[in-house]
Amino acid sequence: MNMGLIVQKYGGSSIANAERIKRVARHICDTRETGCQLIVVVSAMGDTTDHLIELAGQVTTRSPSKREYDMLLSTGEQISIALLAMAIHDLGFEAISLTGRQVGIRTDAQHTRAKIVKVGAERIENALSAGQIVIVAGFQGVNEQDEITTLGRGGSDTTAVAIAAVLKAEICEIFTDVEGVYTADPRVVPKARKLDVVSYEEMLELSSLGAGVLVNRAVEFAKKYQVPVSVRSSFTFSEGTLVIEETEKMESEVIRGVTCDKSEAKMSILDVPNKPGVAGKIFGALAEVNINVDMIIQGAREGGRSDISFTIAKSDLIKAAEVTERVKEELGANQVLVGRDIAKVSVVGIGMRSHCGVAAKMFTSLADQGVNIQMISTSEIKISCVVSEKDAETAVRLLHEVFELGDVNVASVEAKSG
Amino acid sequence: MNMGLIVQKYGGSSIANAERIKRVARHICDTRETGCQLIVVVSAMGDTTDHLIELAGQVTTRSPSKREYDMLLSTGEQISIALLAMAIHDLGFEAISLTGRQVGIRTDAQHTRAKIVKVGAERIENALSAGQIVIVAGFQGVNEQDEITTLGRGGSDTTAVAIAAVLKAEICEIFTDVEGVYTADPRVVPKARKLDVVSYEEMLELSSLGAGVLVNRAVEFAKKYQVPVSVRSSFTFSEGTLVIEETEKMESEVIRGVTCDKSEAKMSILDVPNKPGVAGKIFGALAEVNINVDMIIQGAREGGRSDISFTIAKSDLIKAAEVTERVKEELGANQVLVGRDIAKVSVVGIGMRSHCGVAAKMFTSLADQGVNIQMISTSEIKISCVVSEKDAETAVRLLHEVFELGDVNVASVEAKSG
Repeated sequence: MNMGLIVQKYGGSSIANAERIKRVARHICDTRETGCQLIVVVSAMGDTTDHLIELAGQVTTRSPSKREYDMLLSTGEQISIALLAMAIHDLGFEAISLTGRQVGIRTDAQHTRAKIVKVGAERIENALSAGQIVIVAGFQGVNEQDEITTLGRGGSDTTAVAIAAVLKAEICEIFTDVEGVYTADPRVVPKARKLDVVSYEEMLELSSLGAGVLVNRAVEFAKKYQVPVSVRSSFTFSEGTLVIEETEKMESEVIRGVTCDKSEAKMSILDVPNKPGVAGKIFGALAEVNINVDMIIQGAREGGRSDISFTIAKSDLIKAAEVTERVKEELGANQVLVGRDIAKVSVVGIGMRSHCGVAAKMFTSLADQGVNIQMISTSEIKISCVVSEKDAETAVRLLHEVFELGDVNVASVEAKSG
Repeated sequence: MNMGLIVQKYGGSSIANAERIKRVARHICDTRETGCQLIVVVSAMGDTTDHLIELAGQVTTRSPSKREYDMLLSTGEQISIALLAMAIHDLGFEAISLTGRQVGIRTDAQHTRAKIVKVGAERIENALSAGQIVIVAGFQGVNEQDEITTLGRGGSDTTAVAIAAVLKAEICEIFTDVEGVYTADPRVVPKARKLDVVSYEEMLELSSLGAGVLVNRAVEFAKKYQVPVSVRSSFTFSEGTLVIEETEKMESEVIRGVTCDKSEAKMSILDVPNKPGVAGKIFGALAEVNINVDMIIQGAREGGRSDISFTIAKSDLIKAAEVTERVKEELGANQVLVGRDIAKVSVVGIGMRSHCGVAAKMFTSLADQGVNIQMISTSEIKISCVVSEKDAETAVRLLHEVFELGDVNVASVEAKSG
């Protein structure tokens, strides 16, 4: 590990205008003055990307070429790096901006959602050795044919972590518009507490389940290369949440957080003949049209027939309904039901591996409050329940309370007054 | 020459918004349908560059690093090429956008005013062979260190001509917001006539003297590689002015056009000792601070002393005045005079090489109308007179009339009515 080398990443809202760019530049120079070397990865400014997408929409009647889309969108980060470098110069510090290509961020050929294959270290190392703060365009790279590619949603996080991994940085700090990772969404649970530390695995579940501060690909990269990641606010610059490999101490807390995801819909095929190959037929047909299925449950009925339910992204619902209706006919099933108003509520924590009764406690608590559980799915460190969308907030607040995740002081005050 | 290969260049106003981009795309596809191969060079959209410069001004208190400036400004053309390629796809034609780097536009290392050193042909040729319309970002390249450079004012014209030269295109069409090159500024001389054809050399003089439709570097490139250039309107798409090597036929017209340049100021040092090294001292001192001197005249006085006058860009006036005052003291000259309200009026034409009396006709005509000539300078194909700024329009109209440059029909009608 390269002690004294820090990678910082600033998202679009952190550098949305000239004032914010100057503020971030100030913070970067303050960090530099502590004596460390610095690589800074930035996204496009605030609504630049939206503006570019709007322009693309104005010149085309159908969805534009993905190659040209990447050519267009990658300009957003290039604008940011140049302006940030200028702002840093203005404070009397040395800095150089580098595009994804100049850094040597090689990706595969999938335009608009390319994956990083390789990160060059040489150019960055030379600049660092020359005493420069290195400002890198996130979200972008080039493929083998020298075409500009972009990494898809949250791509700048991945760029930052990948660079931190290759350069063996001490830490990768992700500056964003929240204070860190919370035990639950603070808008839903006022008592939600900022976590000081979470494991990579927990972060993966917290992020995929809607915490949304760090994309999964970035976390996977961090886990693979053991890069400590800190999620922090670019508005207060206060200490955030540290995402690291799990430690024994972490296991003492059974549950780390409660999440809620309203982006999925539920489909059920009722009264399906219970014979081999049925499930394969259904999910094969969905896979063929690129629909990702999340949870699946199959329940037996009398007479050798069963019901099969699954969840998919709401945005795939129309396509999925077509496919499922067709498969229903082929299978001689009885009916297809669609449920839009659902929410997936999950509890996450590596501690549940060594603690029994977490699931039972979750189910019982929900039942006691009259919240009906429609589907259940479990993994080693997560238990998810699909409930009616109208019950979602109640369920999250209840579980947050039951698993004692709240701020201790706030909780005790409320307990006294309650 | 590659018959059937056309290079077109569209400036910022031609693609200022989505509507205009779609209109240009339509014209490109129409051209393509005639069966030719097409390379299209574009500038940044309308006020994109201004917007980027404004952003740079907001994050810095002093003039920003030129390297970062190029990093910033080069995004403008990249946005244009992606959008234009999308708009062409939308019309059902094959197109691919390429940045300066992807084309292989190599430049020297002078950021913000780099010179093209080499243009790669391979990538463009491959795309053309694949049946694609090639859309190239003008104004930009990369230097040997792989840094993004920009070519300075009018750089996209130079890009277009350089590519036309290397790919041996049949013609390089510069689409702009005027109909072509005129015998004089039509706002000053209503009878000004659009020229069908001018020679490279004439174009150099017409452009440097303020016609302003094509930068000199582009014309020099065109002359060097014998690229026929056409200056045309992107609003009417009508036939413009063809810029080519001079022909014998061209010489029959003595004067091609009258230009007027108000961007210069005049300085005079009076009563300078007339001894060797004096001029060297004055102009050496100005060169040291990077001030370009245009016209110089020296007139003898009695008693072995003389007056020296010269013109410089108005924008250099303050700096030049400081230097000249200092030199005046050193030389023991008497006084420095500054004239801001001057204009340089010139007649241009390769025909004057073989026709006598052009200068005499010019001076006499001006004198007859009471226009005082302050300075004179001549070249093989140009005669320039510095006059008072208030006399400039009168002088231009007069010379346009005297050398019979106007539209024949309009002129004869006026003659009858007059």
